[in-house]
Amino acid sequence: MSKYIGKTGIVVRNIPRADPALVDELQRFGVATIHEAQGRKGLLATSITPIQQGRVVSGSAVTVLVAPGDNWMFHVAVEQCRPGDILVVAPTSPCTDGYFGDLLATSLKAHGVRALITEGGVRDTHTLREMGFAVWSRAISAQGTVKETLGSVNLPLVCGGQLVHPGDVVVADDDGVVIVRRAEVAQVVEASRQRADLEEQKAMRLANGELGLDIYNMRPRLAEKGLRYVDSLEELED
Amino acid sequence: MSKYIGKTGIVVRNIPRADPALVDELQRFGVATIHEAQGRKGLLATSITPIQQGRVVSGSAVTVLVAPGDNWMFHVAVEQCRPGDILVVAPTSPCTDGYFGDLLATSLKAHGVRALITEGGVRDTHTLREMGFAVWSRAISAQGTVKETLGSVNLPLVCGGQLVHPGDVVVADDDGVVIVRRAEVAQVVEASRQRADLEEQKAMRLANGELGLDIYNMRPRLAEKGLRYVDSLEELED
Amino acid sequence: MSKYIGKTGIVVRNIPRADPALVDELQRFGVATIHEAQGRKGLLATSITPIQQGRVVSGSAVTVLVAPGDNWMFHVAVEQCRPGDILVVAPTSPCTDGYFGDLLATSLKAHGVRALITEGGVRDTHTLREMGFAVWSRAISAQGTVKETLGSVNLPLVCGGQLVHPGDVVVADDDGVVIVRRAEVAQVVEASRQRADLEEQKAMRLANGELGLDIYNMRPRLAEKGLRYVDSLEELED
Amino acid sequence: MSKYIGKTGIVVRNIPRADPALVDELQRFGVATIHEAQGRKGLLATSITPIQQGRVVSGSAVTVLVAPGDNWMFHVAVEQCRPGDILVVAPTSPCTDGYFGDLLATSLKAHGVRALITEGGVRDTHTLREMGFAVWSRAISAQGTVKETLGSVNLPLVCGGQLVHPGDVVVADDDGVVIVRRAEVAQVVEASRQRADLEEQKAMRLANGELGLDIYNMRPRLAEKGLRYVDSLEELED
Amino acid sequence: MSKYIGKTGIVVRNIPRADPALVDELQRFGVATIHEAQGRKGLLATSITPIQQGRVVSGSAVTVLVAPGDNWMFHVAVEQCRPGDILVVAPTSPCTDGYFGDLLATSLKAHGVRALITEGGVRDTHTLREMGFAVWSRAISAQGTVKETLGSVNLPLVCGGQLVHPGDVVVADDDGVVIVRRAEVAQVVEASRQRADLEEQKAMRLANGELGLDIYNMRPRLAEKGLRYVDSLEELED
Amino acid sequence: MSKYIGKTGIVVRNIPRADPALVDELQRFGVATIHEAQGRKGLLATSITPIQQGRVVSGSAVTVLVAPGDNWMFHVAVEQCRPGDILVVAPTSPCTDGYFGDLLATSLKAHGVRALITEGGVRDTHTLREMGFAVWSRAISAQGTVKETLGSVNLPLVCGGQLVHPGDVVVADDDGVVIVRRAEVAQVVEASRQRADLEEQKAMRLANGELGLDIYNMRPRLAEKGLRYVDSLEELED
Repeated sequence: MSKYIGKTGIVVRNIPRADPALVDELQRFGVATIHEAQGRKGLLATSITPIQQGRVVSGSAVTVLVAPGDNWMFHVAVEQCRPGDILVVAPTSPCTDGYFGDLLATSLKAHGVRALITEGGVRDTHTLREMGFAVWSRAISAQGTVKETLGSVNLPLVCGGQLVHPGDVVVADDDGVVIVRRAEVAQVVEASRQRADLEEQKAMRLANGELGLDIYNMRPRLAEKGLRYVDSLEELED
Repeated sequence: MSKYIGKTGIVVRNIPRADPALVDELQRFGVATIHEAQGRKGLLATSITPIQQGRVVSGSAVTVLVAPGDNWMFHVAVEQCRPGDILVVAPTSPCTDGYFGDLLATSLKAHGVRALITEGGVRDTHTLREMGFAVWSRAISAQGTVKETLGSVNLPLVCGGQLVHPGDVVVADDDGVVIVRRAEVAQVVEASRQRADLEEQKAMRLANGELGLDIYNMRPRLAEKGLRYVDSLEELED
Repeated sequence: MSKYIGKTGIVVRNIPRADPALVDELQRFGVATIHEAQGRKGLLATSITPIQQGRVVSGSAVTVLVAPGDNWMFHVAVEQCRPGDILVVAPTSPCTDGYFGDLLATSLKAHGVRALITEGGVRDTHTLREMGFAVWSRAISAQGTVKETLGSVNLPLVCGGQLVHPGDVVVADDDGVVIVRRAEVAQVVEASRQRADLEEQKAMRLANGELGLDIYNMRPRLAEKGLRYVDSLEELED
Repeated sequence: MSKYIGKTGIVVRNIPRADPALVDELQRFGVATIHEAQGRKGLLATSITPIQQGRVVSGSAVTVLVAPGDNWMFHVAVEQCRPGDILVVAPTSPCTDGYFGDLLATSLKAHGVRALITEGGVRDTHTLREMGFAVWSRAISAQGTVKETLGSVNLPLVCGGQLVHPGDVVVADDDGVVIVRRAEVAQVVEASRQRADLEEQKAMRLANGELGLDIYNMRPRLAEKGLRYVDSLEELED
Repeated sequence: MSKYIGKTGIVVRNIPRADPALVDELQRFGVATIHEAQGRKGLLATSITPIQQGRVVSGSAVTVLVAPGDNWMFHVAVEQCRPGDILVVAPTSPCTDGYFGDLLATSLKAHGVRALITEGGVRDTHTLREMGFAVWSRAISAQGTVKETLGSVNLPLVCGGQLVHPGDVVVADDDGVVIVRRAEVAQVVEASRQRADLEEQKAMRLANGELGLDIYNMRPRLAEKGLRYVDSLEELED
Repeated sequence: MSKYIGKTGIVVRNIPRADPALVDELQRFGVATIHEAQGRKGLLATSITPIQQGRVVSGSAVTVLVAPGDNWMFHVAVEQCRPGDILVVAPTSPCTDGYFGDLLATSLKAHGVRALITEGGVRDTHTLREMGFAVWSRAISAQGTVKETLGSVNLPLVCGGQLVHPGDVVVADDDGVVIVRRAEVAQVVEASRQRADLEEQKAMRLANGELGLDIYNMRPRLAEKGLRYVDSLEELED
C-alpha cells in the first residue's frame, strides 16, 4: 500500500471503517492511555496541538494530501466523509497557511465529521471554538490558500510523523493525537479498558499516600542499579 | 519614507489617522476576512500570538522601535497616543524580554489605547488579562528591561514581516494580526462587507449539506486537471 | 557543591528549606516582581510554560535529574517530598516525553506537593487541570517513558538555564518561573514588598493619566541622549 | 505491514534488497532529480542534514528503531548489514543525543555499510569526516547514550516524515535524503535518466541566454492568468 | 509605494539602479561594516544563511514575490535582470521548498546575475557551489515546486524582516545580508570607507596588546556606572 | 558561590586556574571522550556550534555576563585574560546579536586567549576563520551592539545549560563544548586517557569486522530482555 503514499490526483471513494461502537468507546480513554495500551506507538508529533481545551474525540480517518498553500482537496474530501469521520490532512511539504476556516467547518459539521487533524494551519479559530468544531493543527494562520494543484483523498499518508491509512481510528484530546490501526481497534479497546481499570486502583492507593516505590516494588531494582541514599550532601563528602 | 525605517532618536508627534468610524467597522470582520478582502496581504507572522482569547480589536498604529532589552521608548510613545490607537512595537534585533507589563498597560489604557502588538515579550500577563488590556506578542517573559538606548516613535517599521506606517490600521483577533494601509481603509471596509455577506450565504448552503464542489462548480476543473475517482485502492491495482 | 551537578545514582534525604511563612508570602508577589526585587536574576527560560492559567504557586525545590525518556526518579522523589514542596525536574539531555501524568500528580498531591516545574514533557493535562495540580513544563506529550536508568534526587541541577539547589524557593505564575536562593528569601520578600508598594502608587498615578516620562523624570536624560521631536515626517525632510 | 511500525523487540534477519546495479546507478542522479523523477515524493524532512559536503550515496535501507537516549539497537543492527547497505535510524520519540560515533562507524564500515541516516544525533563528527563515513543526521551532540531498552531492526518505520521499509533504496546528497520504494527502483532509474538528459539539454540552452519563459512556452499561460507588465511603478499609478 | 507590497500579477520592467562603481565598491567592506556605517539598519534576519563560505557579493535588487511552493515568477524575473543584479525573493507565506536549482542558476548566470537571496529554499546545492553561483537562503530542500500562481517582479517586498525596493543595493557575505537604500549608496560607501580605515588603525593597536578599555577611554564611564573590581570572590564576602 | 550567579557590576581579578599541562592534555581527547570520562556531564547545549571545522581547543574559562545587545563587558574582560584562557560569555536574556567581531578577536589573540564560547552571536566570521580565532556561538549575526549596561566578569554563570565557574576548564571541538571542573581536571585527564586507550583497542577489533554484540557480550542480556529474531516478516505472521 505504501506505493500510494505521496501520490496525487486520486480520490478513493470507499474506505473500510472500524466498528462505530468500538470507535466511540475509544473516546472514553484518552490519548495517553490508548498509546500505552497499544504498546506505545501511534502518537502524532507534539507540534500538532488543539485549538480548544477539554475536548476528546474519536473517529475514522479520511486522509487528505494537499499542496502547500492550496486547500482544493478539502472540498473534494467533504464529499467522501460520513458521520463519525475525522479529517486527517498533511501538506506535501511544510506549510502553515490557513487552509481551513469556518466555512469548511460548517460543511464538515453538516456531514457529521467530528474533527480536523492537520499538519497545516487553520483560521477563524474563534468561530471554530464557538461552533464546537474540534481542531488539532500545527499552526493558526489567517493566510488564504489557492485552488490550483491536485492532492489526494483516502490514500495512506504520513501526518505528524505517523503513517495513517484511511479508516484508521484517530483519538485526540488535550495531550495530542494518537492513531489506532483499524484492524487493532478491538484489542486496543480491551487493553485500554484493562489499563484504565488498573490505573483507577493505583490512583486510589496513591491518593491515600502510598508510594509508587512500594506499589510497584521498585526498591530492590533501584538498589541493584546502585542507587545510594545519603542523609545530606555533607555525608557525600566523607 | 523608507529611509526612516530603522532610524533611531526621532519622535514624530503628528501622524495621520484613518476615519474612526471606518477603523471601528473593521473590527466587525476579523483578521481572515480583511486579509482576503484586501488581496491576501498585510498579515503579521504567526509567531505573534494573543495572550487572551476571544478579543477582536482595531485601531490606528502608533509605531515604536526599541533596542533589545530596553523599553524606554514605550514611555516616550504613551505621550503620542490618542484614544483608539494601538501600539505596534518592534525591537531593532530579536529580543523576547518582558518589555511591557501592568504599569505600562495602565498608562496606555488611561490614554485610550486599545491594544499592544509586539515582536518582543510581555509580562504580568495574568493582570493584563484581568484588566482587559489586549496584547499580541511573540513571547511571554518576566525578564526586566533597561532604559539606556534611544529608539524611535512614529517612524515606519517592519513588525512580524510587515511594513507598518504610523496611522496604518491594525486589526487583531484570535487568528493573529493584519495591517490595512490607511489610504485603503474605505475600500477594504467595503470589500470586507461584501465578502462577509457572501460568506454568510455560502455558510447557509454548506450548513444544509450542499457541497463546496457544487457551490463553487469545481468538478469540471478538477476533471480537467486529471483528478481520478476510484472505488477502492484495489481498483487502482488493476 | 557544583561537583554534584550532573551526578546520578544519589538521593539526598534531608534538605534545608526556607521559613514556610516567607515561602508563602512570596506567592503574593508574582514572578515579575520577585525577579526585579532580587536584581533581575533567577528566571527560567521562557520555553517552560504553564499548562493552566491564573495560578500562582511558591514552594521549596525538590530537585530531580532524569534520563531521557525515563521517569523512574519521579517515583523515588515522591518519598523525599514534604508538604509545601515543588518538584523541579531536568532531563540529562533534551527530551519532551510525557514523564508525568495523573497518577504521579495524585501521589504528589497526597504528599502535599504544590506543583511540578520541568524541562521535560507531561501528559494527562486535562485531568491535571481538573485536579488543580499546577504544572509548568517545556512540552505536552502523551509519550510513555521507561524505568531503567538512575538519575538523582536533591542534588543541584540546571533547569531552564538556572542553577537550582534543593531547598531553593520556586515561584511560578502565568509569566513563568523564578528561583529565589534559600539564603536570600527574607531579603527578597522585603524587597518585593517595597517594590509592590511602589508599583501600586505608580499605578494610581498612571491610571490618572500622568505620564511615565514625568513620574520618572525621563525628559532630561532623553534630551541629553539626543532624542528629537518633530511635528511630522515632512519636517524631517527640511 | 503497517502493524509493525513502532513495534519493538524484533529483529528481522532477511530483507529483500534491490538490484545492486540499479541502486548504484541511482547515485549518479542526486536527490532532487530522483525526487522529481518519482513524482515528487519520498523526501525526508529538511531537518536531517549532512555532516559533510560533496558526498552522494545510495544503498539499501536497514531500518533501526531506538529508544530515546539508547543506542543498543545500533549494535544489533550491524550484524544484519551487508555491503551496500545504509542504516536508517529513528528514535521512538524525539531525541538529539549522540547515539553514534567513530566506533560504530568503524564497525559499519568494516561491514561495507555506506552511510547513516538518522533522526537522532551523532558525535565524533571530525573523525567521521576523516574516515569518510557519510552521515545525515538531525543533530550533532556529544551526549552519551545507554543500552537498556529494546527497539527493533528491519521493521518499517517513519524517519524524517517518510515511511521507510527495510530494503527500500536511500539516496542522499548535499540537498538531503530521498527514499525510493524497492519495487519502483527500475522505473525510477529510467525516469531519472530521462530527466537528467532533458535537464542537460535545457541547461545548454539556458547557458546560452535563452529564457525559460520561451523554452517552456510560459508566456501565453501567464497572460491568461492576467500577468501585467508595466514599464515603471509610475505607470501603475495612472 | 507601500501599497504595492504584497500585490501580485505585476511585473515592472524598468527599475532604477545605483551607480555600478559604487555598488561594486560596497563589496569591499562586508556586511558588518556597512550595517554599522549606515546606522545599524538594513540587516536581514539571521535565518537567511549562505550555502557557501568565503564569498562576498554586492548588486542591485530585482525583487520577486512568489506563492508558497510555486517558482513560476523566477522564470519571469530572469528576463528583467541585467548584469550586476541580485535576485531577492520572498514567498507570500512561509515556505522552505526547493524553488531554485542548477537550471535557474545557469539561466541567471547567463544573464549576469550575481547571487540569489531568498526566504525560501534552494536545491542542487552541490552544483550551485561548483558553478560558483552564490546563494543565501532560509533552507536547503530538494522539494519541487509548481507553476500555477502569479506573484510579482520588481515591486517592493519584505524579505528577512527588511523592506527591499527594486534597485536597492544588496551586500552579502558569511555574516548574512544587508540592504542599502539606492539613494543612500554614495554616503554609505563613504561612511564605510571611513569606518574601515578607523578599524584598521584600531586593529593595529589591539594587535599590539593595547586594551579597548584604554583606546576607547571606557574606564571613567564604567566607574561612573558603578563597576567594582575585586581581587577575588572571597573579597566580596567581606 | 551560587549567590553571585546573575549578579552584575562586578569584575573579579584573580581566578584560580588549573595546571596548564593538564589543560593542554585535555585537548588531545576531544569533547565526546571527556564527557564520557567524567560521567556524562558538563556538555553545553547543541545550539552552541563552531563557526569553523576541524579545531580542538582547551583552556581556562574567563566568564563574562553581558546585557542583551550590549558588548561592553567583552572589553572589560580582555584585561582579565591570560594566555591559555577561553572566554565564556552568556547574555542575561536570550540575544543573538553580533557581540563579537574581528577587532575583539584581534585583542583577545594578542593576549593569548584561545577561543570564544558564547550563547550570543558573532560577526566578521570570514575574518575570524582567516585569523584562526576559534569560536563556538549560538548565532552568526552582523547586528551591532551598544555599551551602556554593566554585566560582570569572572562570576559563575550558566552558559548553554551548564554552570561555569571562572577557572573551570573548557574543551571544544566539532561536536560542541564540554566543561570540566577545575578540581576534577587531573582525574578527568586520567580517565580520558584510559577511555581513549580502551577505545583504540575496540576500534581495531571492530575494524576487523568483530561485532559489538560479541565484544561487549550483549547477546545474553538482549535475550533476557526478550529480543526476538525472525527470518522474515512473514515468519512473524504465523
